Amino acid sequence: MRIVEISAFIAAPLGGATLAAMGADVIRVDPPGGGVDIGRWPLHRGRSLYWAGLNQGKRSVTIDMRQQPGQQKVARLITAPGEGGGIFLTNLPVSGWNSYDELKKLRRDLIMVVITGNRDGSAAVDYTVNAALGFPFVTGPEGQEGVVNHVLPAWDGMTGFLVATAILAAERHRRLTGEGQLVELSLSDVGLAVAGHMGFIGEAVLEDEPRGRFGNHVYGTFGRDFVTRDDRRVVVLALTPRQWRSLVEATGLSGEFRNLEARLGLYFNNEGDRWRGRQEICDLLQPWVAVRSLASVAASFDAHKVLWGPYRTFKELVADDPRATSANPLFVDVDHPGLGTYPTPGSPMRFSAAEAVPPRPAPTLGEHTDEVIREFDL
Amino acid sequence: MRIVEISAFIAAPLGGATLAAMGADVIRVDPPGGGVDIGRWPLHRGRSLYWAGLNQGKRSVTIDMRQQPGQQKVARLITAPGEGGGIFLTNLPVSGWNSYDELKKLRRDLIMVVITGNRDGSAAVDYTVNAALGFPFVTGPEGQEGVVNHVLPAWDGMTGFLVATAILAAERHRRLTGEGQLVELSLSDVGLAVAGHMGFIGEAVLEDEPRGRFGNHVYGTFGRDFVTRDDRRVVVLALTPRQWRSLVEATGLSGEFRNLEARLGLYFNNEGDRWRGRQEICDLLQPWVAVRSLASVAASFDAHKVLWGPYRTFKELVADDPRATSANPLFVDVDHPGLGTYPTPGSPMRFSAAEAVPPRPAPTLGEHTDEVIREFDL
Repeated sequence: MRIVEISAFIAAPLGGATLAAMGADVIRVDPPGGGVDIGRWPLHRGRSLYWAGLNQGKRSVTIDMRQQPGQQKVARLITAPGEGGGIFLTNLPVSGWNSYDELKKLRRDLIMVVITGNRDGSAAVDYTVNAALGFPFVTGPEGQEGVVNHVLPAWDGMTGFLVATAILAAERHRRLTGEGQLVELSLSDVGLAVAGHMGFIGEAVLEDEPRGRFGNHVYGTFGRDFVTRDDRRVVVLALTPRQWRSLVEATGLSGEFRNLEARLGLYFNNEGDRWRGRQEICDLLQPWVAVRSLASVAASFDAHKVLWGPYRTFKELVADDPRATSANPLFVDVDHPGLGTYPTPGSPMRFSAAEAVPPRPAPTLGEHTDEVIREFDL
Repeated sequence: MRIVEISAFIAAPLGGATLAAMGADVIRVDPPGGGVDIGRWPLHRGRSLYWAGLNQGKRSVTIDMRQQPGQQKVARLITAPGEGGGIFLTNLPVSGWNSYDELKKLRRDLIMVVITGNRDGSAAVDYTVNAALGFPFVTGPEGQEGVVNHVLPAWDGMTGFLVATAILAAERHRRLTGEGQLVELSLSDVGLAVAGHMGFIGEAVLEDEPRGRFGNHVYGTFGRDFVTRDDRRVVVLALTPRQWRSLVEATGLSGEFRNLEARLGLYFNNEGDRWRGRQEICDLLQPWVAVRSLASVAASFDAHKVLWGPYRTFKELVADDPRATSANPLFVDVDHPGLGTYPTPGSPMRFSAAEAVPPRPAPTLGEHTDEVIREFDL
C-alpha cells in the first residue's frame, strides 16, 4: 500500500506512521525547509524528537507546492498508478489543485482522507477540542479552581489511529467495487464521538447533577494513588469483585473492611458502594501502603493479583521499566541521525501472518526527493 | 463484515462499536446477567450509560460460557461460515475452547484479535498504563505535588480505534491470501508506542533535564487558559507564526509584544521563543482578556482567525455547543430504552461512497439471543 501524506503535527502523521509500521510505503511531502511542525518540541540538540517520532519509517520529499509545477508533480505522485497507490492523506487546507475533485481527474479510484479541526472545516486542535469537551473541569485535584489541560494530546492520538482505520476501510471498498472515495473526519467529531461512547454526553443530558471533580479517584468504582514508605506512588484499583477480593486478601484488612461496610451500610462487592465508600477505604489503605516500601507493596499485591501499578516519571520509565526498553520486542534501539540512539517502537499490533516490520528512523527532510522524482517520473 | 465480541470495559467494546457504526454486524456475547461492565458508571436511573455508549449498534447474546454446551455454541457462532464472518474480538482471558488454536480447527481462516493489558498477558488497565508512562507527573498545576490522573481513559480510546485498524488489516490479508491469523495487542504497548511517536521516550533517554510540570501551558510553544471578565475560561494558542500574527493583530498588542521581544532578546515568530517568553506573554494577554466578555473576546479572535476556544463543562457542552447536538450530523437524538433520549454519535468518519449508518442504541442485554441462535443454528 502506498500513501502520500501532506500533513503537520500529530493526527495525520501518526496515521501515516501507523501504516508505515505495518509495512506501507508512506511518502510525506513537505515544502523545502519543512512544514510548520519541523521544529516542534521536544528537541534534542536543536532537532525535533517529535518530528522524528511521528514520521518514523516514511520517505520524505520536499517540493515547493506554492507554484504550479510543484503542484503538478505532487498531484502526479498522489495519483500515480499501481493497485496499492492512489491514497492521499492530509490535514492541511485543501482547495484547487489538491482537492478531491481535481485529483480524481487524474486517478478515478483515488482514496483521499482529509482531517479537519471542526466538521465545517474551521480550525480546531487537540487543545481547543479538549477545552470544549468538559474534561479540563473534572481533571486535577479536588477543590482545584478552573481547568486542568491534558499533556497527552489524546484526541490527536485517537484521530491518528482512526485515520488508519479509514484508509483500510476505503481500500477495502475499492478492492471490492473499484470505486475510490473521499473520507472526511474532524478532530472535534472524534472527540465528541468518544465522549458519547463513554457516556459523558448522555450523563450531561440526563442527570441533574453535573459530573464533579474527584481528584485521582477513578469515577464510579475504586481506584486512587497511594504513597509508599519510600515515597513512591502507586495506583491501586478494584474494578471488579475479583479485584476487590484480591485487595482485601493482599492487605489482610478483611476485618477492617467488614466493619467499615457495616458502619456505612455498604457492600464493597458492588462497585457503586466502593465508590460511595472510597474515602473511608482510602483511609484504611493509605496507612497500610505508607508503612511498606514499594518492593514490599509489589510483592504483596502481585502475590494476590491485585490490579495496581507504580507511577513513573518519564525518566524512571526509560530507566526502570523493561517494557520501555528493547527487552520488549515492541522496541528496537534505533540510531536517529542527528539525534542519537533510543528505544523506538514498531507497531503495537502483532500479526501472526506477517513478519513484524522493524522500526526505522524518520527520514531526514527531503531525503527521498530525488529517488521519488525518478521512481514516479515526476 | 461480522464480528463476534467477548469483551468488557472500553477498548474492545469501542473497537466493536467503531466497526458497528460503519455498518458491521457486531455480536457481543456476555454471560447471563451481563459481564463485569454491565453496571459501570456513569448511571442513569441505575442503568449504565457507559455500557449503552460502548455497545451502540451491536447485537447482544447471553450464553453461559462456563459449561461445555455454551462454549460449543459460542465457538460455532465465532466460526460460522460466510465471507465476512469468522472474526473474533476479545479482551477477556483466552484459553482452551476459545483459544486461537482451538477455534481455528472449526474455521481455518479465522481472524482473532486479542487485547491484553501487558504484552505478556499480565493485567494492566488504562489507569496503570497511564501511571507508568510519566504523564501524571507532568499534568496539573505548576507546583502540584505528586500525580494527576487523567479522567479521560485515553489509552483505552486509542486501543479501541487501533483494534478497528487491526481487524481491517487482517481482513485485507485474508481477502488477498485466504489466510486468517491471530492479532495481539496490549494496552501498555499502545501507550508506549504513542509515547514513543510523540517524542517522550527519546526525550527521556537523550535529554539530561527531565520534562517539567508546566501547568496549563502547551509545552514548547504558546498556549494557555485565560479568564474573561464574565468569568469564562478560554484556551488561546499560537502554534505557528501565522497564528501568532493573528493573536498580535486581534489584541492590538503589537507594540507591547515588540517591546517584550526587545527586552527579553526573543523573537516570537519562533515557537521556542514563544515558549521561553510564555509567562511574560501571558502577563500581557491576561489583562486584555480579563476586561472583555467571552462574546467580545470571541468576536475579536474570530475576526483575526486566532486559534482559540472556550472551555465548557459537560453540562455547558450539551447546552451551548451545537457540535454536541443533532445540529451536527454526527449526532442523532436516539431513544435508549430504559435511559431516555440524548444525542448519540454515529461514526466520525464520513465516507463519500457509503451512506452514513444512523446511530442505533445499544441492545438490551441478551436481546438477540434467540434470534442469533436461530440464525446460526447454534
